[in-house]
Amino acid sequence: MPAHVFDQAITLTGQGADRFAGHTSPAYWNMVGPFGGISAAIAMNAVIQHPSLLGEPLSLTVNYASALRQGPFTVTARPARTNRATQHWVIEVFQANDTGVQETVLTASAITAVRRDTWSGSDTPMPPVPPPRDVPSQTVNVPIEWINRYELRVVTGKMPRHFDGLPRQDAPETASLTQLWMRDAPPRAIDFCSLTAFADVFYPRVCLRRPSRVPVGTVSMTVYFHASGDYLRACGDAYVLGQARGQVFHQGFFDQSAQLWSESGTLLVTSLQIVYYKE
Amino acid sequence: MPAHVFDQAITLTGQGADRFAGHTSPAYWNMVGPFGGISAAIAMNAVIQHPSLLGEPLSLTVNYASALRQGPFTVTARPARTNRATQHWVIEVFQANDTGVQETVLTASAITAVRRDTWSGSDTPMPPVPPPRDVPSQTVNVPIEWINRYELRVVTGKMPRHFDGLPRQDAPETASLTQLWMRDAPPRAIDFCSLTAFADVFYPRVCLRRPSRVPVGTVSMTVYFHASGDYLRACGDAYVLGQARGQVFHQGFFDQSAQLWSESGTLLVTSLQIVYYKE
Repeated sequence: MPAHVFDQAITLTGQGADRFAGHTSPAYWNMVGPFGGISAAIAMNAVIQHPSLLGEPLSLTVNYASALRQGPFTVTARPARTNRATQHWVIEVFQANDTGVQETVLTASAITAVRRDTWSGSDTPMPPVPPPRDVPSQTVNVPIEWINRYELRVVTGKMPRHFDGLPRQDAPETASLTQLWMRDAPPRAIDFCSLTAFADVFYPRVCLRRPSRVPVGTVSMTVYFHASGDYLRACGDAYVLGQARGQVFHQGFFDQSAQLWSESGTLLVTSLQIVYYKE
Repeated sequence: MPAHVFDQAITLTGQGADRFAGHTSPAYWNMVGPFGGISAAIAMNAVIQHPSLLGEPLSLTVNYASALRQGPFTVTARPARTNRATQHWVIEVFQANDTGVQETVLTASAITAVRRDTWSGSDTPMPPVPPPRDVPSQTVNVPIEWINRYELRVVTGKMPRHFDGLPRQDAPETASLTQLWMRDAPPRAIDFCSLTAFADVFYPRVCLRRPSRVPVGTVSMTVYFHASGDYLRACGDAYVLGQARGQVFHQGFFDQSAQLWSESGTLLVTSLQIVYYKE
């Protein structure tokens, strides 16, 4: 059976000494570079593939320095410090520019950890939403290839139909809220890499808050994982509920606070990202 | 006039080639190392002091790899990529171990940016709270030195008086909520470095959610800045309102979502951190 298109896109070949070789995937192309979520998943995958890995992913921060172009790239993932139960990673992605010089296109850091059973609790219950099969799948008519790699069933906060450029004057705390069921298309069992990409699937908050077509691009994204690999494996290819909200839009940058729950209601991921917007 | 104790603690001496020398400050000591907020402010300061700096701080992520011990340390801050309006920084703090070998104690990344005027808006209004002078200043009787460097006026979510180890069964979404006015003690005009430290002053959410004295330690913190240096200068040494809430507590790690507003109600900072806890 051929590998899932997501696995093809995040494939890395070890080259020894903390180095990996990868290649961009047209299947996850955005407007002027790859979907940010797939680049973040590639950074996470370099850590997961590293022969010195301790434990499982706990946190990942990805800084998007420049759009990748179609072609090969190099990832370095270095364990800067290994403790008894945690490991600190420094990651960088390089790609050759027009003159063949290797330039930094992405920097990242990650922490992996061996987790133990403790008292646990959630202060963020899954919001009451209809089950995924009761929510129609979004059909979008935009020339963005990566969107076709996801099944998105939007409960709240659909992409606006009319772009009038006026700020929405709804209740401020919900004006930029989206809640949606998501899954890879075709379905794929969730894991740390696919959750990393899920954290970045949300339509740009600024275009929801003030329906206007403006250039946007994620500058930095942080993802925290709150579930074990065993728990994720038990979820299989079930849906994940995502929620995203902008907290503030100011002088060309807005932030996005996001949560991902398993279909059965366990909070799997919390995330924060900051996004450039023009005008 | 001697420098403010905060400025003394974050002082770095340039050593050329992206290197800076610093020294820990007993005034900001925690239990087994410096207050995490002061270490984050030092990482931010290395970028701000760097001769190649472009723009102003937009984001900072700090990963705490190991407690620093009292003594000198070295910071490296490298501009990995400089674009037209954004700059991507990779930061690392080293300290000599028992045998004199330099070890990584902290890794960080930051983005600085030249901001432009755009449409702006906030979806996170300052919560309704009494003005700072109507809220009594917290007096804590704990042997943690850094707490004395802050004036903390807690509106909601005080440190519990009784540690019974039982989870609080309040409404889940507010059980781990704290809102407090804060200011440096003695007062100091706010700037990007002091806001970085403010983002980490909150009492550990797990000890509020389940009043129990357990070892805790921040593992990673991300801070986004939503105000210009000019705006911060205009605030002077006014109070800042901080809000923090835990979203999930699971297998030894909980997260904390936080916001900081100026006294006049402008959202200055949004932050997310992940914290280790035992038991």
